[in-house]
Amino acid sequence: MEFIMRNTQLLSKIATNDGHGEKSPYFDGWKAYDSDPFSPRTNPCGVIQMGLAENQLSFDLIQQWVVNHPRASICTAEGSKDFKEIAIFQDYHGLPEFRNAIAKFMEKVRGDRVTFDPDRIVMAGGATGAHEMLAFCLADPGEAFLVPTPYYPGFDRDLRWRTGVELVPVICDSSNNFKITQRALEAAYDKAKESNIKVKGLLITNPSNPLGTILDRETLTNLVTFTDEKNIHLVCDEIYAATVFNKPSFVSIAEIIEQTNCNRDLIHIVYSLSKDMGFPGFRVGIVYSYNDAVVNCARKMSSFGLVSTQTQLLIASMLSDESFLEKFIAESGERLATRHNTFTRGLEQVGIGSLKSNAGLFFWMDLRRLLNEPTVEAEMKLWRIIINEVKLNVSPGSSFHCSEPGWFRVCFANMDDETMMVALRRIRNFVLKAKELEVASKKHCRRSNLQLSLSFRRLDDIMMTPRISPHSPIASSPLVRAT
Amino acid sequence: MEFIMRNTQLLSKIATNDGHGEKSPYFDGWKAYDSDPFSPRTNPCGVIQMGLAENQLSFDLIQQWVVNHPRASICTAEGSKDFKEIAIFQDYHGLPEFRNAIAKFMEKVRGDRVTFDPDRIVMAGGATGAHEMLAFCLADPGEAFLVPTPYYPGFDRDLRWRTGVELVPVICDSSNNFKITQRALEAAYDKAKESNIKVKGLLITNPSNPLGTILDRETLTNLVTFTDEKNIHLVCDEIYAATVFNKPSFVSIAEIIEQTNCNRDLIHIVYSLSKDMGFPGFRVGIVYSYNDAVVNCARKMSSFGLVSTQTQLLIASMLSDESFLEKFIAESGERLATRHNTFTRGLEQVGIGSLKSNAGLFFWMDLRRLLNEPTVEAEMKLWRIIINEVKLNVSPGSSFHCSEPGWFRVCFANMDDETMMVALRRIRNFVLKAKELEVASKKHCRRSNLQLSLSFRRLDDIMMTPRISPHSPIASSPLVRAT
Repeated sequence: MEFIMRNTQLLSKIATNDGHGEKSPYFDGWKAYDSDPFSPRTNPCGVIQMGLAENQLSFDLIQQWVVNHPRASICTAEGSKDFKEIAIFQDYHGLPEFRNAIAKFMEKVRGDRVTFDPDRIVMAGGATGAHEMLAFCLADPGEAFLVPTPYYPGFDRDLRWRTGVELVPVICDSSNNFKITQRALEAAYDKAKESNIKVKGLLITNPSNPLGTILDRETLTNLVTFTDEKNIHLVCDEIYAATVFNKPSFVSIAEIIEQTNCNRDLIHIVYSLSKDMGFPGFRVGIVYSYNDAVVNCARKMSSFGLVSTQTQLLIASMLSDESFLEKFIAESGERLATRHNTFTRGLEQVGIGSLKSNAGLFFWMDLRRLLNEPTVEAEMKLWRIIINEVKLNVSPGSSFHCSEPGWFRVCFANMDDETMMVALRRIRNFVLKAKELEVASKKHCRRSNLQLSLSFRRLDDIMMTPRISPHSPIASSPLVRAT
Repeated sequence: MEFIMRNTQLLSKIATNDGHGEKSPYFDGWKAYDSDPFSPRTNPCGVIQMGLAENQLSFDLIQQWVVNHPRASICTAEGSKDFKEIAIFQDYHGLPEFRNAIAKFMEKVRGDRVTFDPDRIVMAGGATGAHEMLAFCLADPGEAFLVPTPYYPGFDRDLRWRTGVELVPVICDSSNNFKITQRALEAAYDKAKESNIKVKGLLITNPSNPLGTILDRETLTNLVTFTDEKNIHLVCDEIYAATVFNKPSFVSIAEIIEQTNCNRDLIHIVYSLSKDMGFPGFRVGIVYSYNDAVVNCARKMSSFGLVSTQTQLLIASMLSDESFLEKFIAESGERLATRHNTFTRGLEQVGIGSLKSNAGLFFWMDLRRLLNEPTVEAEMKLWRIIINEVKLNVSPGSSFHCSEPGWFRVCFANMDDETMMVALRRIRNFVLKAKELEVASKKHCRRSNLQLSLSFRRLDDIMMTPRISPHSPIASSPLVRAT
């Protein structure tokens, strides 16, 4: 202990505080998955990872493309003559063809209704690095960004940890489908002001992570008006722009500011290829700022997280292939839609609802009626049952700073069809069994509450009971087979 | 102006101060090169870039290897079946085979006299990201690292800019070949203490950038003793470890601590493949710490600058090929030695000395006798002539915080033989002409100073004079041909 204390004093406050936020159920769920990962053949009773927003559904298209384009790589006979020039290129502007291709791709994803200037494309180490970079550029330690809830848990690390910047929640709830209202914005702004916290900006995700919804034109216009009036920055995380799989179409902030009289120096977009193309391993993060000073400063900061030139070259080549891209975006959207529908409808059939959504790699599942009381503690208790007994790593709403207990983010694009069906069956069976027990309980106890509410005592019963009828719909669940 | 002021207030202090240090002759020289780059065919009178520590001499070996190993790439027919698994991998631990290969490579470069634990290998965005990461882990804003001079100008950006950490110079000079003495260390430590600056560590580069020298066993042992006694960290930048091209052999801090009774929690190594393999574009930075808490914290921070998995896979495969590596390291060393000798001997012949060195991609050229007074101003005046008239971008010692004016870092491995010969000719001719004028001046003015000192008035004369005898040794200089 003494030894640890001695060490601790030698390190920085950043190293010894827990500002990284890893002690969150969001990350705990990943660890639960890591220690017992599902595999249809070798570990059919393991945890299914539904906490990871990966886009795995269209890699066959990508793979085909790379094999057909050997010059996109410096490791093929066709491309290797460029190995040296690429390997030694370390200009923080990035390869011109890379920036051009990214700008074109961003335009295409937005229906070619806007243009992006390649000279404003700044590289970062993923969206993670991009967000931190913007926070370093825009705010001093102690200053804050407003962030509508629920929001991506990683923001607490990305924007706050090493920068000392604060995040102030803008409370949204299900009463209006988590819409970001003027009233909620003003309330958060005023609260920060009362606490003597200087608000430097508003951070939004559009499409939303975790909601899977997109912001409509009117809301976006109102947000720009709000930030413009307050003279604060508007940071728009649009990393899910190409995952919009149903109408209405995605509207980028880039479109809004072309139609609005606002100070463009306040507008910044964070982009990435981790979700839209499904390449999180490649660490392609982008800051696109309309503010020259921010572009210049962020470009210098990009030295800390440049994209590998090997990857820049591949991306430059792939994203320059317009016909491939059109096909990829369309096909990827169709596959996401199919997966989303299969999952959400499968849950609807057993009475589980979710927030209506048309984008993202996840949906926002409503398990409020399974809580015996609307508290974070009850949500966490339910979450532990889902992860430990139902063996699904979904992420609890509280880890997204959601103000309403009982919501869970369910990722659906990071698995094959077979795994998806197992996951769907597990959760359906869990709910059906809960209902059965509820009905039985009602008969026995003649309880009068109309709402189907499930006590955790009973949830525990479900998971422990070994007596399953062979005709029961849950018989095929590997979970049940395991008990 | 009003517009700029308004913007400035909206941004952070980091964005609006000039802590990045880009306003240094070190970077100015790059800009001079960028605006008029030498090309033997198309721009034979352009600036030759000798300010960039690139290792370009052995790419033929690399290129051959990649063509012979198509499975090392996810973009070949042979490797593409792994595309998906690699593209979606974003664990901040990195691919296990990548960490294993890096550890093995670090051992091989150090003659297999030490072992490295793959679990202590932490990824960062180049050495740039690795240094910042360590600074964030080890020190709070306002705390300091001691750094022996001359030191790499990028440290002012890497360690200070976004962290708020300070660098305190440890003054070394040519009287003992820039040795780091106990006395200099204590003086710097005491000076910091007097200024109420808490010293948290000592940062060394071994092999040294810009000196091209290596630290001997005794000096390294003394440094460990010093940091251990003060209970401060020792950060060893060993990114040039495989560039040692002559005896004596490189000694890593990893060897020293195995033979010394010290607190290993204070020892940290920064590594990279930018110099030893010549891959700065790939952004492979490594923190290797003997301190568990630092490994854990740095691992979390690596999210801001992970190495692209596409690159991790290639590196894992290439660095696992032991016979290739042995050949590469030996051949690369020989080529560096040849280049180094050609250049330094070619300068010796015209009376230009340099610090004796056996490592790195540069040498430390002594032009003190060309200064008319030993000041930074005189050094900068000479530097401007070299860059603007001789058209060589060498880097002035002052940009490395050197305490003695008149030294210049000359990079020799970032060009082909033809360019190298042009560069050598230019500088030889410049010096010879300077001598000629000096002799003439002596005859005319009967000046008695024994030391060859050149006034800038006379330097200007050299560069401006169009009257060159056809038999003059400088006739073949493209510079002269241009006038």
